[in-house]
Amino acid sequence: MPDAGGEARAVAGERERFARAALTRVIEPGDEHGGRWLREFGAQGLMARLTAAELEEAGLTGATARRLAGYRIRATGADPGRDLAAIAAVGGRFICPGDQEWPTQLDDLGDARPIGLWVRGRADLRKWALRSVAVVGARACTPYGAHMAATLGSGLAERGWVVVSGAAYGVDGSAHRGTLAAGGATVAVLACGVDVVYPRGHAELIGRIAEQGLVIGELAPGDHPTPSRFVLRNRVIAALTRGTVVVEAEYRSGSLVTARSAQKLGRYTMGVPGPATSGLSAGVHELLRGEGVLVTDAAEVAELVGDIGDLAPERRGPVLPRDLLDPVSARVLEAMPARGAADVGRLARAGGTTTDETLGRLYELHSLGFVERHGEGWHLTRSAIRGSNARRGGP
Amino acid sequence: MPDAGGEARAVAGERERFARAALTRVIEPGDEHGGRWLREFGAQGLMARLTAAELEEAGLTGATARRLAGYRIRATGADPGRDLAAIAAVGGRFICPGDQEWPTQLDDLGDARPIGLWVRGRADLRKWALRSVAVVGARACTPYGAHMAATLGSGLAERGWVVVSGAAYGVDGSAHRGTLAAGGATVAVLACGVDVVYPRGHAELIGRIAEQGLVIGELAPGDHPTPSRFVLRNRVIAALTRGTVVVEAEYRSGSLVTARSAQKLGRYTMGVPGPATSGLSAGVHELLRGEGVLVTDAAEVAELVGDIGDLAPERRGPVLPRDLLDPVSARVLEAMPARGAADVGRLARAGGTTTDETLGRLYELHSLGFVERHGEGWHLTRSAIRGSNARRGGP
Repeated sequence: MPDAGGEARAVAGERERFARAALTRVIEPGDEHGGRWLREFGAQGLMARLTAAELEEAGLTGATARRLAGYRIRATGADPGRDLAAIAAVGGRFICPGDQEWPTQLDDLGDARPIGLWVRGRADLRKWALRSVAVVGARACTPYGAHMAATLGSGLAERGWVVVSGAAYGVDGSAHRGTLAAGGATVAVLACGVDVVYPRGHAELIGRIAEQGLVIGELAPGDHPTPSRFVLRNRVIAALTRGTVVVEAEYRSGSLVTARSAQKLGRYTMGVPGPATSGLSAGVHELLRGEGVLVTDAAEVAELVGDIGDLAPERRGPVLPRDLLDPVSARVLEAMPARGAADVGRLARAGGTTTDETLGRLYELHSLGFVERHGEGWHLTRSAIRGSNARRGGP
Repeated sequence: MPDAGGEARAVAGERERFARAALTRVIEPGDEHGGRWLREFGAQGLMARLTAAELEEAGLTGATARRLAGYRIRATGADPGRDLAAIAAVGGRFICPGDQEWPTQLDDLGDARPIGLWVRGRADLRKWALRSVAVVGARACTPYGAHMAATLGSGLAERGWVVVSGAAYGVDGSAHRGTLAAGGATVAVLACGVDVVYPRGHAELIGRIAEQGLVIGELAPGDHPTPSRFVLRNRVIAALTRGTVVVEAEYRSGSLVTARSAQKLGRYTMGVPGPATSGLSAGVHELLRGEGVLVTDAAEVAELVGDIGDLAPERRGPVLPRDLLDPVSARVLEAMPARGAADVGRLARAGGTTTDETLGRLYELHSLGFVERHGEGWHLTRSAIRGSNARRGGP
């Protein structure tokens, strides 16, 4: 009875997801002690032990005992049913390790890996993250910093890269805005619940990102940011992306924390230079005097992180067979003309869906190597045409 | 009869110097063909062959034959006696490989080594070059570039470094001026005769450098600059110094030629970053994306090039025994107080010489590890005090 077995596994999976959702209220982002217990006991096992006082406290040292006491209080108060309902109410979802959509590169964080991610937005996080770059920097940036962040955002978008940032004022906001202005794909990683608007002044921006991109975070709905949550959020940005570009940062700033996390995780670390007289470039220059690579435009970023070769798109082929595409993406791909380019509106009409939905699918198809973008037009890659011809019995 | 033998050697040396002075009119800077013949035949031998048509022309290919014809014409017209009188008339001298004052690091240039150097100024080139850094960059620099060049010049001067540049408009001029403003030591390497003022607008600056520093070059008195002479002058700047800092440079600019020469010669290559939006920083950023090291101030430059340790002056000792100092330097050193600092005026009076002369000697003594400077005051280094006490029978 394979179906019944599959159903049992699905139920077990849902219980584990439920327990992980609860644990996002119990264990702070990046807490490796909690992460180790989670690995040892599983999510359900750990929640059971925390709520039923089954975890042995004997022999624990002061700090660990205090930590455990904190877990117990928060575990008793957790209401994952309410949190999952809250995320559903804003059209979002909760994803865990093991899910199709889970970005497995986060596993590089070891026991500091997020317990799960709360997500708003239509796109598939895993597929977007495969082809993403972080652009981060100072909140109180100069007009130069804002200009560079926006230019990098739009330039990366035009090259089919997904731009990840933290939705903060200054560089983060400019990077998101530049990407959106170019019709590109962007992901905001928040240090609070994905239904919480922080900073308040970015309400409209975060709303647009949730509509056209993805807003994600480790904190349960309604949860608020704290200084340590901002710092630890940065490790998620670093781990999720192929590389991190720092645009303006003072000495010892949060953006440098992201850059150093990226370095430790083996990701590319880049910095945009500025005047040596600017305190807001001092942190970037410090980075560039170490392991960081100096970049001055999106082409240089793409050249560094893009081993699939933006400069040689004809050599890039689909990374997934057509038959594994979900039905909506497959419809958008079928709507693509065999020769020449089509714009998003035409493809949406042909595929019978919205332009926002179509644009999301196009970026997904781009990251998978099926389509390319030139300005406003989208067309099939050479290898996608070859694959299509083969299916149609063509040359 | 050792005295007679010494005299004979001195006469032979003078004849060789005379021939080398003549050859600076015959062989263009950096001409490796001429350099190879010079190495094979010696200066007198080569001049004799060129003027007496003794060099076999049979079997030479077209280009080499034409080159030789050019040499012959120029060798016949050369008048080293007049050139040596001209340099003496402006208070200068001609130095050659083998001279005490010859900077032996120029030997790294192989057959492209200068045939000799025409020099104006009081200081000892060899000693200054031991502790020198080049600061070069765009002629049409921005106010930011001019500011950075001047700041580096003064900062390096304050740390006892000699600043070498090309006396051009823009970055070069600002580097020289910043150094002079801080009472520092600076060397201008010209692409023309050292009695020729080029550019005209720098007449006063070049005059001041000849007074307070050194003006040097490969070209004979009265000779004029040409585009290739500018390019080849850069190899002398690169070879003479411990490292080259590029402040603002466009793609493919002459400053990058200096930087690449420095790299090939195993010298440090550094660049000052600027806005990614500035075409005048594009060349520097290109350098920094390769082997160049990003520097933002004089401390970072000194840290990189200064293996004798600006950060640990107490560990730095004299590199020459006191007894080998020339009489004037020895008098200035004797005038130094055993404790505390003295200013230049006081030392000049005590040593019975001018303040300019004294300042030159102090920089020489500094480069040799005898004295240190803090603001306007000069004092003995710890190891110089120890040496002095040992001589006086002190502790």
